[in-house]
Amino acid sequence: MSVPIAGVGMTPFGKHGELTARQLFAEAALEAFEDAGIGPNDVDEVFYGNFMGEFAEQQGHSGPLAADMAGVTAPSTRIESACASSGAAVRFGVNRVRSGEVDVALVGGAERMTNISTAEGTAALAAAADALWEIKQGITFPGAYSLMAQRYFHEHGGGREDLAAIAVKNHQNAVENDLAQFQRAIDVDDVLEAPTVCSPFGLYDCSPMSDGASAALLVSEEFAEEHGLDPEVAITGTGQSSDRLALADRVSMTSTPAAERAGEAAFSEAGIEPEDVDVAEVHDCFTIAEVLALEALGFYEQGEAISAARNGETTIDGDLPVNLSGGLKAKGHPVGATGGAQISEMTKLLRGDHVNSDAVADAEVGITHNAGGTVASCVVNVLEVVS
Amino acid sequence: MSVPIAGVGMTPFGKHGELTARQLFAEAALEAFEDAGIGPNDVDEVFYGNFMGEFAEQQGHSGPLAADMAGVTAPSTRIESACASSGAAVRFGVNRVRSGEVDVALVGGAERMTNISTAEGTAALAAAADALWEIKQGITFPGAYSLMAQRYFHEHGGGREDLAAIAVKNHQNAVENDLAQFQRAIDVDDVLEAPTVCSPFGLYDCSPMSDGASAALLVSEEFAEEHGLDPEVAITGTGQSSDRLALADRVSMTSTPAAERAGEAAFSEAGIEPEDVDVAEVHDCFTIAEVLALEALGFYEQGEAISAARNGETTIDGDLPVNLSGGLKAKGHPVGATGGAQISEMTKLLRGDHVNSDAVADAEVGITHNAGGTVASCVVNVLEVVS
Repeated sequence: MSVPIAGVGMTPFGKHGELTARQLFAEAALEAFEDAGIGPNDVDEVFYGNFMGEFAEQQGHSGPLAADMAGVTAPSTRIESACASSGAAVRFGVNRVRSGEVDVALVGGAERMTNISTAEGTAALAAAADALWEIKQGITFPGAYSLMAQRYFHEHGGGREDLAAIAVKNHQNAVENDLAQFQRAIDVDDVLEAPTVCSPFGLYDCSPMSDGASAALLVSEEFAEEHGLDPEVAITGTGQSSDRLALADRVSMTSTPAAERAGEAAFSEAGIEPEDVDVAEVHDCFTIAEVLALEALGFYEQGEAISAARNGETTIDGDLPVNLSGGLKAKGHPVGATGGAQISEMTKLLRGDHVNSDAVADAEVGITHNAGGTVASCVVNVLEVVS
Repeated sequence: MSVPIAGVGMTPFGKHGELTARQLFAEAALEAFEDAGIGPNDVDEVFYGNFMGEFAEQQGHSGPLAADMAGVTAPSTRIESACASSGAAVRFGVNRVRSGEVDVALVGGAERMTNISTAEGTAALAAAADALWEIKQGITFPGAYSLMAQRYFHEHGGGREDLAAIAVKNHQNAVENDLAQFQRAIDVDDVLEAPTVCSPFGLYDCSPMSDGASAALLVSEEFAEEHGLDPEVAITGTGQSSDRLALADRVSMTSTPAAERAGEAAFSEAGIEPEDVDVAEVHDCFTIAEVLALEALGFYEQGEAISAARNGETTIDGDLPVNLSGGLKAKGHPVGATGGAQISEMTKLLRGDHVNSDAVADAEVGITHNAGGTVASCVVNVLEVVS
């Protein structure tokens, strides 16, 4: 069943100084209310994504807090699936509206990350890995994904230049996106010559620490009709899947079966195949992650997505433009907000009011892919133009 | 719509040494599978409550981790609503089964608390309060609830002896409960003479730090029939509500409107009134909390529940036995597991296989009340005998 997106909102991603996560969420939510033409009192339930509030703000129990700042008194719950937290929040909202028990769900998330040091942030993010079998061995996320990249090169070929093309593409896409953290182009040499973070990754292979928030209002078709709303875009399929947290516990380091299953579930609900997809936002927390996402979702066979950006297939004028928002790489990655931001950006891309909409003027179907950890959690949503 | 409880499980609450939260949850889940006569592969979705994993185990993203330890590969999400985390997880499972999209939901939660110091634990628990306006002012939960108790005495009368009767009752109820952390009786003098934690609370007015886990398997009626299950108890109503986190932001310190709304929603779904309830498990994290819960749920007018235990109305042979499990006070309070444990204990009470079942042999309707923070989150579930 199709769930219309009545409104979306998103703060700029980047550094927000003294603003708290709750304040950022309120800003995104108020924009979504204005976009939808409805108000806080219309909301029946809130699903709020946040990952590292305990570490950054000593704040858990943030579901009621975020709702309160947005003026909403409906039941609100914090959903935590690491960097897929707000993707999961979106899916929970879709499912609640689809059940017929809720007419309006406010979904999204927020994260505050730049108020603590990069070292503290890296340690906080590590809580998305297996504390016993990864964190205690010293694994951080750049480390975990670099292992996946090295293994990918070993099994399938490819190298740093291929990954660099992904960073270059996503930075280029963000140049005119006012909400993006990095609104500037880079070239392949910039990527290759940047300081090494964890081989094979240089600085530009990694998404940044960011503050920011996202929100979307999901409504029932009955509510939309009764209130004279005319949402142009709806979520027509949603899928979520889980995997073992520790890389060492998995059969392969170069495939992400949770993304495969989440994609299959979402595509099946929407009644689409990968070839029906016109535009995609995928979870490029590191450049290799975009490769793994495109293969898991069936856009490429395993081992073949590595050259997609370099060949121009996923650039803005390619067959399947990927991360027209700038992706996590250039738009920024306030982790608990990212899944919701993908929904906000994709909705605008499909409605025609995104700075990059012209590049996909005929697009009817877009998908979002939001991952947690080394894809131990994954949520895929299918968005379609419905009016 | 009624959602049968096919099986329940619960670890003993108390100190579990080296056992991690994921291991504790697996133990509870495996008991629930055995109780239900189904297996991990039957599960369609998992909702896992955990509150302070980041502080106690440096572990977030625990939904997939807990499911994996229980042998479940279905999508799993960590639900965090402070001490109401697994109550919310139960409600999410009820709603998913009721939607018709999920046949079997594994719900529950776990918490590990005794591996860190009491001071560290108290600081971790404070993350359920408003970091900006409460934690930074030095408020901890014994402090917040003691303010509520002092104000209650001021507005309505009552005193430490009334609260002591609640602690004595709940300890008495736990004496033969093998799963309880404190299986021993205390008397009023023990309570009054115990070291002061935060006036008016002595040690026995406070629930302890505990390790433990809980699990329940919620199934569709179709699934139960197809698999020859014959669940005796079902959840017939569920309600959740939110409030502002900070006590100072509320109109009253002696009422808990989130509990009132959650109760009304749950009772309305089940089609019952307070007078239909035969037995209750309520969130007595501090003795005063039991008083506030009984008033919010409509069992007493405001200002009148303070003497309920002292008058014998809520004791095991009273008109409305409350916390026959021992409650959080004596059973223990591994915070993320508590809401699920209330379901496990109430299911057994109603089925007749709880050590205290004889006291409520004719009971048909039980309710559970699970609160987060100073009741900024509340989930109420109605359980009824259905076969």
